[in-house]
Amino acid sequence: MGRIAVTDGMAGAAVSILENAGHEVVLRHYEVEELRTGVLADFDAVVIRSATKMTSEAIEASCSGGRLGFIGRAGVGVDNIDIMSATTNGVVVCNTPGASTKSVVELTIGHLIASTRFVARADRTLRSGDWAKKHLRGSELGGKRLGLIGFGRIARGVAELAHGFGMEVNAFDPYVSAEQTDELDCLMHDNVDSLFRACTHISVHCNLSEDTHHLVNRERLAMMPDIGADGTACGSHIVNCARGGIVDESAVLDALDSEVLSSAALDVFEVEPAIGNLLLQHERFHGSPHIGAATLEAQNRVGTEMAGLLVAFFNGERPKSAIN
Amino acid sequence: MGRIAVTDGMAGAAVSILENAGHEVVLRHYEVEELRTGVLADFDAVVIRSATKMTSEAIEASCSGGRLGFIGRAGVGVDNIDIMSATTNGVVVCNTPGASTKSVVELTIGHLIASTRFVARADRTLRSGDWAKKHLRGSELGGKRLGLIGFGRIARGVAELAHGFGMEVNAFDPYVSAEQTDELDCLMHDNVDSLFRACTHISVHCNLSEDTHHLVNRERLAMMPDIGADGTACGSHIVNCARGGIVDESAVLDALDSEVLSSAALDVFEVEPAIGNLLLQHERFHGSPHIGAATLEAQNRVGTEMAGLLVAFFNGERPKSAIN
Repeated sequence: MGRIAVTDGMAGAAVSILENAGHEVVLRHYEVEELRTGVLADFDAVVIRSATKMTSEAIEASCSGGRLGFIGRAGVGVDNIDIMSATTNGVVVCNTPGASTKSVVELTIGHLIASTRFVARADRTLRSGDWAKKHLRGSELGGKRLGLIGFGRIARGVAELAHGFGMEVNAFDPYVSAEQTDELDCLMHDNVDSLFRACTHISVHCNLSEDTHHLVNRERLAMMPDIGADGTACGSHIVNCARGGIVDESAVLDALDSEVLSSAALDVFEVEPAIGNLLLQHERFHGSPHIGAATLEAQNRVGTEMAGLLVAFFNGERPKSAIN
Repeated sequence: MGRIAVTDGMAGAAVSILENAGHEVVLRHYEVEELRTGVLADFDAVVIRSATKMTSEAIEASCSGGRLGFIGRAGVGVDNIDIMSATTNGVVVCNTPGASTKSVVELTIGHLIASTRFVARADRTLRSGDWAKKHLRGSELGGKRLGLIGFGRIARGVAELAHGFGMEVNAFDPYVSAEQTDELDCLMHDNVDSLFRACTHISVHCNLSEDTHHLVNRERLAMMPDIGADGTACGSHIVNCARGGIVDESAVLDALDSEVLSSAALDVFEVEPAIGNLLLQHERFHGSPHIGAATLEAQNRVGTEMAGLLVAFFNGERPKSAIN
C-alpha cells in the first residue's frame, strides 16, 4: 500500500476511495522552497493542482529517496510540472484531461454572452445607482462567426453549444486535420491570421507553450472584423478561459482603449493572482479568477478519475492518461 | 398617406421603409401628462415601446380628433396599453411578438450561467483587488432540472439551448396543453407549486397579469430543492427576464439573506428604473437594466416588423399581430 501526498486539495469522495483501498493520504500544501528540501521523498505519489510547482529541482529532491514514482495533476494543464525531469527520474506524470471539460465549456459560453450583453457591466452600473439601459445595447451571438484557437475537447464542446445559438464555427489547430473535423460543421483554417481575419468573436482553447505565448497579439487583434457574418455591427470580442500568457494583456488593454477591440473576457492571466492588473479596471473588460474548472462536478470527476489512475499505478499498471 | 408618431425610437431602416412608402414619421417622446392633452390627435398611428404609457385617458385624448386608428407596440409586452379603451375607440393594437425572442433567450442563458458561475461577482471581486477563486466554486447547468414559468416562444428557445447544456427541462403553462409539447422533450406540470418543488433552476417567461403578479413568492422559493437532479449540491437559482412584478422582490431578498435561495438574477423590476432597490446590493444577486430586447438585431427586426404592420394598416388590411 502506498503513501500519497495531496498538496492542493482533492474531493472527499476520491480520498475515501484511496483510503478504502488501503493507501495513506496526507493532505498538505508545500511551497516550492519546501519541495526543494525533499519533503516529498518518503511518498510514493503526489497529487497536485495548479498551485504546486513541480520544478526540476523540486522533482530531483522529491526523488532523492528513490521512492516517488507518480505525479498526478488533478486537472488539465501540466505547465507547472517539469516533464523532462520527471521522465529522467522515472516518474510517471498523469493528468485528468476530460474531467473539467464541461465546466470550462459552460464558463466560456457565459463569458461570451457576458461580453456581448454586458452582464458584469450591467450589474456594476445598477449597483452604482445608474440605470444604463440606453448604453447597453448589445448584439446576439446568433449569426456571428466564432473562431476557436485550438480544437480539442473543450473547443469542441463550445462549438456544439455555439451551433445551438446559431453561430458559424471556425477553428485553427495545427494538430488536428480537416478530415478529423469533417462531421463537426467547423471550418478549419490553416493559419491563425486567417482565423482572426474571419471572426468577430475569438475564444482561446489551446495549451500554453513557446508557440502559443502571446499568440493573441496586437497585430492579430487589429485583423478582427467588427461587422458580423450576418451584417450586424457587433464589434470584436475575445475570450480566454485556457491559460494566461496566450493573450498579450498589454495589447488587449491598448486595443480596448483605442476601440480596436469591443470587449475582452479573461478567466486566466499572465500573472496570477491577478491583482493590480490595469486591464481589470477597464469598462469593457470583465474577468474571473481562474475558475474554469471550479465547479463541484468537475472537482468530483477530477478526484474520482485521479483515484482511478493511482489505483492503476499501485497495481503496477501504466495509468491511461500517462503523458511521459 | 399617413402621419405616424414614433415616441420611443425606432430603427433607422424601418423609418426609411415608412418614409419611402410616402408616410410622415415624427420621432418624439411624450410623457403621459402630454398624451392626456391630445398631442397625438392629429396622427393616424403611434408606435411606442415600454416608456410611453397609453392609459385610458391618453387613448381617449388621442382619439378626440377621430383620426388615430393604430397603436403599435415595438416589442412584446402590452401592459402599458389600455387595450379595452383602444378597442372601445376603434383603435387596433399590434405588437411584434417574435422579433426579440432570440435576444431574450440568449440573455436568459447568460444570466443562468452568471448565476451558477458568479460571472458578475467574479468581476466585481477582481476589480476590488480580491482573488476570490476559493469562494467561487460553482456548479454546472448540465444535469440540473430547469423549470420554465410560461412556455411560449422565449421559453421554448431557452428550452432548446438548455437541452444542449444537458439540462432536463420542465415547464408550467396553463395555456399550453401537454399534447402541444410532446415533441419538445419538456415535462409539463399542471400546477406551479409542483414546478418549484421539482426544479433547482427557475426562469420566468410569462406575461404580467393579475394571475402572475408575485407568482414567484416566499412560499414557492422555499419549495425549491437545493440538490440538483444529478445529485450535486448546486443550490437554487431564479432568473427573470420577462416582466417586473411576477417576482416578489422582497421575498427574494429575504430568501437570499436566509440562504433559502442561492442566487437571483433579474433583468426586470417591480419599479423601473430600479434605483435604490435593496436587492441590487446583495452579494448573491446580479441584474441588468431591462435589456432583454436591447440588441441591434432585435431592434432592427422589431422596426422592420412594425413597418410591415403599418403598411398593412394603411392598406386597409388587418395587421397580422393585431391583438384586439
